[in-house]
Formats: sequence, C-alpha cells, structure tokens
Amino acid sequence: MSLKSRVRLTISYDGTDFYGWQKQSRADQPSIQQTLEQILSQIFQQEIKVTASGRTDRGVHARAQVVHFDCPVDPRPLNILYKLNSMSPDSLSVIRAQTAPPRFHSQLWARKKRYIYRINHTLIANPFERRFALHHPYPLELEKLNAIASVLVGTHDFKSFQSQGTPVPDTIRTIEVAQFTENSTNGVIEFEIVGSGFLKQMVRNIVGTLLDLYKDGRGTEDLITIINAKDRRSAGRTAPAHGLFLDQVFYEPQVEAQCKDLPSHLPEHLKDMK
Amino acid sequence: MSLKSRVRLTISYDGTDFYGWQKQSRADQPSIQQTLEQILSQIFQQEIKVTASGRTDRGVHARAQVVHFDCPVDPRPLNILYKLNSMSPDSLSVIRAQTAPPRFHSQLWARKKRYIYRINHTLIANPFERRFALHHPYPLELEKLNAIASVLVGTHDFKSFQSQGTPVPDTIRTIEVAQFTENSTNGVIEFEIVGSGFLKQMVRNIVGTLLDLYKDGRGTEDLITIINAKDRRSAGRTAPAHGLFLDQVFYEPQVEAQCKDLPSHLPEHLKDMK
Repeated sequence: MSLKSRVRLTISYDGTDFYGWQKQSRADQPSIQQTLEQILSQIFQQEIKVTASGRTDRGVHARAQVVHFDCPVDPRPLNILYKLNSMSPDSLSVIRAQTAPPRFHSQLWARKKRYIYRINHTLIANPFERRFALHHPYPLELEKLNAIASVLVGTHDFKSFQSQGTPVPDTIRTIEVAQFTENSTNGVIEFEIVGSGFLKQMVRNIVGTLLDLYKDGRGTEDLITIINAKDRRSAGRTAPAHGLFLDQVFYEPQVEAQCKDLPSHLPEHLKDMK
Repeated sequence: MSLKSRVRLTISYDGTDFYGWQKQSRADQPSIQQTLEQILSQIFQQEIKVTASGRTDRGVHARAQVVHFDCPVDPRPLNILYKLNSMSPDSLSVIRAQTAPPRFHSQLWARKKRYIYRINHTLIANPFERRFALHHPYPLELEKLNAIASVLVGTHDFKSFQSQGTPVPDTIRTIEVAQFTENSTNGVIEFEIVGSGFLKQMVRNIVGTLLDLYKDGRGTEDLITIINAKDRRSAGRTAPAHGLFLDQVFYEPQVEAQCKDLPSHLPEHLKDMK
C-alpha cells in the first residue's frame, strides 16, 4: 500500500482581503488557492496543487470550503492541521484535515452545497457586520420574502440567474432549501439556499432579484416569469460579494465514511497547558 | 431660549483601522475623534470639537461610546442622525443623536461603564473573529476563572492594573460585575466588567493577568496579593486591544430623562419604501 494519499482539507476564510479562490497572475493579489498552494509547497518542498469544491468570487467568504490535494509523502506523522494553521494568515484557517479515497475529488464528488447570504437590514449600519453582511436599510417581511423564495425550490433551468463566464453543459439545477430567517439580536437576516449545484454568481443573482421583487411589491408570479425567460436580463441585480458565505459542501455518506481525520497532536507550545 | 444645544451622540465603531479615539497629529492616522470632528465641521461649516466618555486605545472597539459637542445652530431640523451616517466611514455608525442638558459632559457625568473582552478559545482560530476576539487556544474553565475574577468586585486600589500615562488623582475604583460567560455557538468567551471608572488599560491588564493566573494554576489568593502590591509589575500581561469593546456608558436616570432624541426622518432615497 502506497503511503502517499489524497488529502481533504476543510477551510474557513474571511474573503474580504483575498482576490477570490482562483490563482491570480499577480503576486500582490493573493487568492485563497495561491495562499494554500504556497504553504503546502513550502511544507513539502515541491509544487503542490489544490482543487476546491468550487470557486468563490473575490470578497466571498467560506465557513467550510472543501479542497483536496495529493500529498507526496505519508501525511499521517505530519501534524498537518497545526502546521498549516501556524503558517496561514489570520484570514484563513484549516479546520479539518483528513485522508480521502484515492479518487476523491472535492468538486466532482460534491453532491450539494449550502450557501448563506447575510443582510443587515437595520436603518443604521452595524459596523461589526460591514464585512460580513449587505447593508440593506429597508424593512423586510420574512413571510413575504419566503413566499417568493419558495418558487425556487425544485428542479428548474436557472439560466436567468447565471452571470457570464465559462460555458457549462446545462443550466438545470435542483434547489432543496431557499429560506430567510432572522437573528433578532443583531439585525441580520440570513438567506439559506441548499442545492445540487450553482451557476456562476447564481446565489448573488437570486438574492439581488428577491430583494428587487420585494422592493417593487412584486411576487411569486413575477419570479416564475423570470425563471421561464431563461435570460439573465429578466432578473434583478447581483447582490454584493461580502454578504455571501459558502457554508457547507455535502458528499455521499459512504464517501464521508472513508475520509479519516489525520492524527493531530497539540503543538509544543500548548503541551504544558491543562 | 437659545436654540443652540449641547448634543449627545452614541456611536459604534470597529476600532481595527482607527488610531484610537484621540486626535493624532498625522492626517494619515485617522482617529475616531478626528473623523467625527471633520464630519461635524463640514456639516456646520465651522470647527466643532467633540468630547468622549473616555479615550479608547488604538484597536479597541465600541458598541456604544457616548460623546458630546456644542451645536452652533438649532440641531432639531437637521436630521443629524442620517446626515452623520451618510458621511461616516463604514467602520463608524452614529446609533443615536439626542439633545442634552446644557452642562452635560459625556466624561465627567458618566457614572459607570461596561466593557466586554472577547476571547476565542478554540484551538483553531475562527477567521471571522480575528478582528473582534483574542485568539487564546487554551482550554478555559469558566468556573475557575470566575472564582478568581470575583476578587475584583468591590472598591479597591487598582494601581497594579494601571498602565503608564497621564497621572490621575487616585487609583481607587469600584467594580460591580466581573464575570466570564460563554457563547457556545462560536467558541467565544466574553468577560464582562462594570465599574465606576477605569484606569489606563485597566481592563486589558486585568484580562491579561486573569489569563496568566489561570494558566499558571494560581488563584484568588494570588490576585489579592497582586492588588495589594499596588505595583504594575506584580500583575500580568496587557491583553491585546482587538478583543476589547466599550459596551455601554451609564448616566444618572435624571440625566437620561433630560436627553431627548433629535427628530429624525427617513432620508429621501428611503421614502418610497414600504
């Protein structure tokens, strides 16, 4: 048995200061991919490539993005979780490190994803939410918003919510959950959306459209018309990146069962602690 | 009756990018005071000075700092709350604007203050807390910490917790509340301290000392010894600024009753909203 392994990492990042997931040509525009690859390449003293479950745009955050890479040596004795975190910037944490099946692919094997879009809807902005929520100082009624959003649930052609980019084979996706909930303590409304997959900027285009429809007093019929148009111009604005979080990536239970946490121990400086 | 008024503002700020409360000599090192004075001076087309309930150090945040200034014209028709917020950076919000009694003084009239110090004590740092909590990746038992902290409650000479700075008449202060609580959802422990007044960096010196005592397995007797020493060198480290929030400033109920909210109306761009 080869001791080399495909390694799965779960990472969390504040996207504010990154230039998105994807590697940029300019060294002064660090992307998350670049940052991770640099750290891993330094650890293994050779070029390491990482692949994510999907790209996140510039400014988008992730609570739990999943990535994989091929580890050139046996990763088990490496205490890789602590090594990676000690080398990563404050804006990026590796929250889990696992061995994965040899053919595990963080993007192709993903079965569904959950995104959260956060909206600070108090009249006066909360400065502590400025990086993590859209400030949208308008009254919002959850019941009305949820009635409109419920139209999204099911299998539809979401072409109207796809921004221009690399062509994809088809624009049909299945949405399982699309709902707004309110956290009353901080004036933030969260829009949760879970689906089989998402087109380019689909969540941001959906959120912008839902807010536009609500603002204009339009409703479910109008959203159905927009979906049926299969034309980006029929939908509304693209909500800004900083309210969006990739919250979770889901894989088949049998895949999860094959991913084993890499042994990790307390680093030296923590050893003398109770 | 003069239409001029002393105005009281309650402000909230993310202190990360400010050079503290106090005006700096360098224009490229904006302080909160400078930012507010610039906006007010622009609104009134003359130099306006603001006074706060107390200075906050560079990097310290405020959920509800109280400041006052003398308004050269009748402030009531000015919609000052929205005007100020439309001119302020995202990192600063004015959350309340009131007329105050003519001799109201945000610092001299303050009766007590509440500070919150936030500690992210998970082994792996939460990137979304990096600006708003000390990352202290050690196990912490609230019961033990609270037993030590309880020594602080009462009237004591807190000279051991005073950092060097402008001399003050005396170093005796009364602490009403000093306790740790845990928010289990985000791995953050909050230390709440309410007192009649606080010496320079007193909260940060107290937090640093409490964490040091806990780490070294020392307890209440050791904290009593530190207090009795009346010597800064007897206490522990100064906890970093970014975990600290000025949470609330308290005035006498009869003062509060005399402060009246300035009329505010929705700005034009919000008028057509439901």
